[in-house]
Formats: sequence, C-alpha cells, structure tokens
Amino acid sequence: MIATPYLIFLGDAKDALAAKTGQGIVDWRPDWALGQLRFPECRADLGIADMNIAEAVAAGAKTLVIGTVSPGGVLPESWSELICEAMSAGLDIASGLHTPLASIASIRATSTRLDRKLFDVRLPQQSFTVGSGERRTGKRLLTVGTDCSVGKKYTALALEKAMLEHGMNADFRATGQTGILIAGGGIAIDAVVADFISGAAEWLTPAAADDHWDVVEGQGSLFHPSFAGVTLGLLHGAAPDAFVVCHEPTRTSMRNVDTALPTISQVIEMTCALGALVNPDIRCVGVAINTQQLSEDRALTLLAETAADLYLPVTDPVRFGVDNIVSELLQF
Amino acid sequence: MIATPYLIFLGDAKDALAAKTGQGIVDWRPDWALGQLRFPECRADLGIADMNIAEAVAAGAKTLVIGTVSPGGVLPESWSELICEAMSAGLDIASGLHTPLASIASIRATSTRLDRKLFDVRLPQQSFTVGSGERRTGKRLLTVGTDCSVGKKYTALALEKAMLEHGMNADFRATGQTGILIAGGGIAIDAVVADFISGAAEWLTPAAADDHWDVVEGQGSLFHPSFAGVTLGLLHGAAPDAFVVCHEPTRTSMRNVDTALPTISQVIEMTCALGALVNPDIRCVGVAINTQQLSEDRALTLLAETAADLYLPVTDPVRFGVDNIVSELLQF
Repeated sequence: MIATPYLIFLGDAKDALAAKTGQGIVDWRPDWALGQLRFPECRADLGIADMNIAEAVAAGAKTLVIGTVSPGGVLPESWSELICEAMSAGLDIASGLHTPLASIASIRATSTRLDRKLFDVRLPQQSFTVGSGERRTGKRLLTVGTDCSVGKKYTALALEKAMLEHGMNADFRATGQTGILIAGGGIAIDAVVADFISGAAEWLTPAAADDHWDVVEGQGSLFHPSFAGVTLGLLHGAAPDAFVVCHEPTRTSMRNVDTALPTISQVIEMTCALGALVNPDIRCVGVAINTQQLSEDRALTLLAETAADLYLPVTDPVRFGVDNIVSELLQF
Repeated sequence: MIATPYLIFLGDAKDALAAKTGQGIVDWRPDWALGQLRFPECRADLGIADMNIAEAVAAGAKTLVIGTVSPGGVLPESWSELICEAMSAGLDIASGLHTPLASIASIRATSTRLDRKLFDVRLPQQSFTVGSGERRTGKRLLTVGTDCSVGKKYTALALEKAMLEHGMNADFRATGQTGILIAGGGIAIDAVVADFISGAAEWLTPAAADDHWDVVEGQGSLFHPSFAGVTLGLLHGAAPDAFVVCHEPTRTSMRNVDTALPTISQVIEMTCALGALVNPDIRCVGVAINTQQLSEDRALTLLAETAADLYLPVTDPVRFGVDNIVSELLQF
C-alpha cells in the first residue's frame, strides 16, 4: 500500500485533462489530497492548497504522487531532480507513467540510499499464483462494460462512496493505474502475466466478513477483441455476486477497433454465462449509462426506457448518482 | 526461429516420461532429430543415434535442445559445462525449463562471447501490440478443450501431419513450450503480458494464402477458472474458421481445481458464441477424445455415440487417426 496523505505533483500539465489522475484523487480521496505542487508553467489547478516539498512534509505528507500524464507516458528528465528532492525530504514516490521510476539512475540511487519506496503502479509489485476458482466469504461486485472507457472505474468509485454513506462495509478494488493511485493500492491487471490474471484478481479480493463488499473496477469488455481475455480472467478471479454494466450510448463501434458494439442485454447474458463457472449466484444489479453527450431530457428518457426494458435500476452515476443500485445491493 | 536440425540433450532423465519433450520432437519432426546426447545414468532412450557434441556438429546439428524435464524446471548446475561446450562447438541452445539460460553466468558469458543464440521458449522473445480483431486472409483451425491436458497439442500436430499428407497447405502453430521446441518457433502464450494475449496470437497466425491453414495449439479451457482468460485471448487472436474440441472422458473435475467439467456441447456453444466476435464463420469441425483409459470396444462405442449425438466427426487421434476430421476440412 502507498502511504498517505499525498503531495500531488502536476509538473507543467498543459490543461485539466492532463491532470486527471490528480483530479481523481481529489474527487474520490479528498482526505489524502494534502496539496498540489505545480511548476510555474502548469495550467491545471486541482483547487487544493499549493505547497512546496518542505511545506507538504511539515503538514504530514508521506508520498509524492505524479498526478499528471506526460506525452507517451515518459518521465521527463526535468522531473528527476524534484523527485530526488522529495525523497531527501522523506517522501516515497508513486507514478502511473510508463517509464519505471527505478530506470532513472539518480532516482534509483537516491531511493536505495535513503530507503524510500518507489511505486510504479503499472508494474505488478509482487508475483501471483494461478487462480483456484474457490468460493470465498464476503461479497463482490464487479463493473463490466459494453466497451472500454465507458465509466467502469467511476461507477465503482461512486458505488463505494454511496455504499459507505448507506452504512455498508465496502472497499473499492483498483485494477488500473489511476484507480491504484486513488485507492492507494491494487493491481494493474492488464500488466500481469497471462497465466496469473485470475490468480491476481483472487489476491485482490480475498476472503472477508460476510457483510463486506469488494467493489472491483472492471477492465475492457468481454466483447472487445483486444482485451476480452483480461476481462474474463478478472471476472473469474473476482467471482462477483453482483455486477453493474457500464455503457456509453453514442459509440458507433468498439474503441480503437472495427468490431460492432454488443447490446447491454448481450453483456448481461454473457457475463452471467461465464461468471457462473465460479459463482452460480452471479446477477446483474444495475446499469450505468454515461449520458454526457445527451441533453438532460434525452438522458432521462433513455434511462427510463432502458430500465423498463431490462427490469433493472439504470442511472448515470455522474448526473443522477447510484442510490437506486445501492438500494438493490441493500437487499442482498 | 530455432535453427534445425537438433541434437537432443536428455541429461540424466529418470524415465521415458521425463524425456517427453525430446520424444515429441522425434515423433513429430523426425528429420530434425539428428541425435540424442545422454549422460551414463540416463534411463530414457528416444531410439535415435547417440552422438557427442563433435559428432552432432559434424553431422550438421545447429541447436542443442534440452529434451528432458528436471525437477521443478530448474536447470541443474551440472549441465552448464556441457551447454557451454556445445556453444563452443558452434551450437545454439534451446530450453523449455523455468530457469532462464542467461541467468547462469557461464552460459550468459559464453553466449555473448561467441554470439550464440539462447532460446528460453517459456519467455516471450519479442514484444507485441494489442490485438486488432481484424480479419486476415488464410484459414485457421484452433484446438480447444473441455479441460487442460486433454490432447490439444497432440491433436493439432496430428491434424497438421494428416493435412500435409492430403496435400493441404498447413502449419502447426505452437503456443506452449513443448510445442515450440517441436515447431522450432511459436509463443508461450500464457507467459505474455495479459494486455497482449490476443495481439500475440494474431502475430502467430498472420495473413496467408487463401488455401493456407494455421493449425493452432490451444491452451487451457474456457471453462477452467485458472486459465480461461488465456483461452479467450487466444481464441480472439487466432480468430479460427474451424475448431476441434479435445476431451478426456474419465475426468471427474477440472484439472487441479474443484470446478465441474463442461459437456462437449457446452464447449462448442461457448466457443462459437465468443469466437463469432472476430470470425462469424467459426464452426466446430470435429471432436478428439483421448480414450487411453478405455478398452478398444468401449472407445469405439463412445466415439460412435458422440458422433451420433453431435453430428460431427469424432475420433481418438492416437488410436484411430484424424482422417475423418481432415475430410471435413477438405470441404472448406
């Protein structure tokens, strides 16, 4: 686990979108977002206190988190000095970039000399065993998608938040780099060696108290030809009791490929068919539709039509929250 | 590609089973199996000429292949000297053991100094891109299984052999370490990073002449909770036109787990349902049943019953060959 709270480093982020990792931490873990550190040319602003390294350490920061994406995921040379300064001041470092922190000689040397931890959240931090398929105590919910990038992480985080507000016992389980920085831990499941996908997902969602829910961030789609293997390994490892289908209604084909989009019903049927192998009780408990591209009227109509069609709670988590899905979960 | 022909090194193999990789090469690629090199205490015999390194090099050998399994897949220290000698005499080295050849200092140094190739066939030799899901010219057949270790490699090799005998244009495509040593190339698909499973399988089965068949070695099972992600990624990457279901009729549960076995029909249905995403023409062309545990009478009855039930060619490739399945393929 990454030590909290964080000082969020934004470097010279060009715009708010470049700082979306940092924004995710502020949105979902505000207590951990102690301050932001920005270069003068930075054009993003997370709306939290600006701090230098000394101020952040004095305020209790434990880790410098790189909260911005750089072109190609490369760690700019110009950041190394600041990262080494942060370690000298006592901070660990966490990064979701492609460049491993330890591949930069000065960063590696400083971390070894001072015994600071480097978290490259794209890289698995441990080895796994193959999945066992065994039932475990506790309950699990997985977000699945008609496609990639349809709001699976957002929906899982929104569900965790609403479940906690309803007094439920729930933990978000991150499976991608942004999710890991938000959660302070997790596994970038698509970076695991193929043999261990379901084993890694079992490790991420261990046996727990009967009333406990793991709310697992889904990846890819069973209907995406690039990533369906990852999606299925995650489904078998998480062995969910409940799943929520996430959907973006304006897509015309699967992201980055020519494959046709599945319907929400097809995703529900296939997820049940394949998930039943490890959990015969699996069922769909709701649908999350990203209606950002639609007017509010059109969005409400689409949600109502989909709900009538599927006999399930349907919502846009960003616009209308997820209380209707949580009501379904409270009946488990 | 691993240079052929091979000198097959058996070390001190305890019995014939320990030498099954070497036996596979002799069975399926007899022209490449130039000779065997055995320590005095070796109790396996591939039935080919015994040769020392100098004799093998004089006879034209290009690669020393480790044709035996050691306990835990560890490379015994006592083999390093012989491996280095082989490189000094001009041979490359290929191994399917867990210990990477280059992790032994003397082997690494000798290979660098003499520019000899080291093939650790469990480790991917190159990086891949994510799968595209695009149709390619040429035809593809994939062996799939009701479970792991039910004869998918054997069936694919038997099909390739029979297809070539029938004048068809076919290539076996290896996806596991033994298959790679038999084929002289391929990808250990379960060792690829999860994100690239289907991309690696696409790389293994590139666009080809319209009459060409890739005969792809399957892995795992869509119904095995440890490995189904690998199986699905391979299915999507290989995008088969045809598949053969392999089955072992005496199993009582899936290998190494408590999961119930699927029926052959369930495997056919699920493979079609998932494979249609990338190839709507996918269909089952036969069933291969491993009847080793059954009397010949019982075996023949089971094959006939299964064929009547499924309206498909059914055989035991070891006992009765695969001509009935090849007849089906000739009609494509």
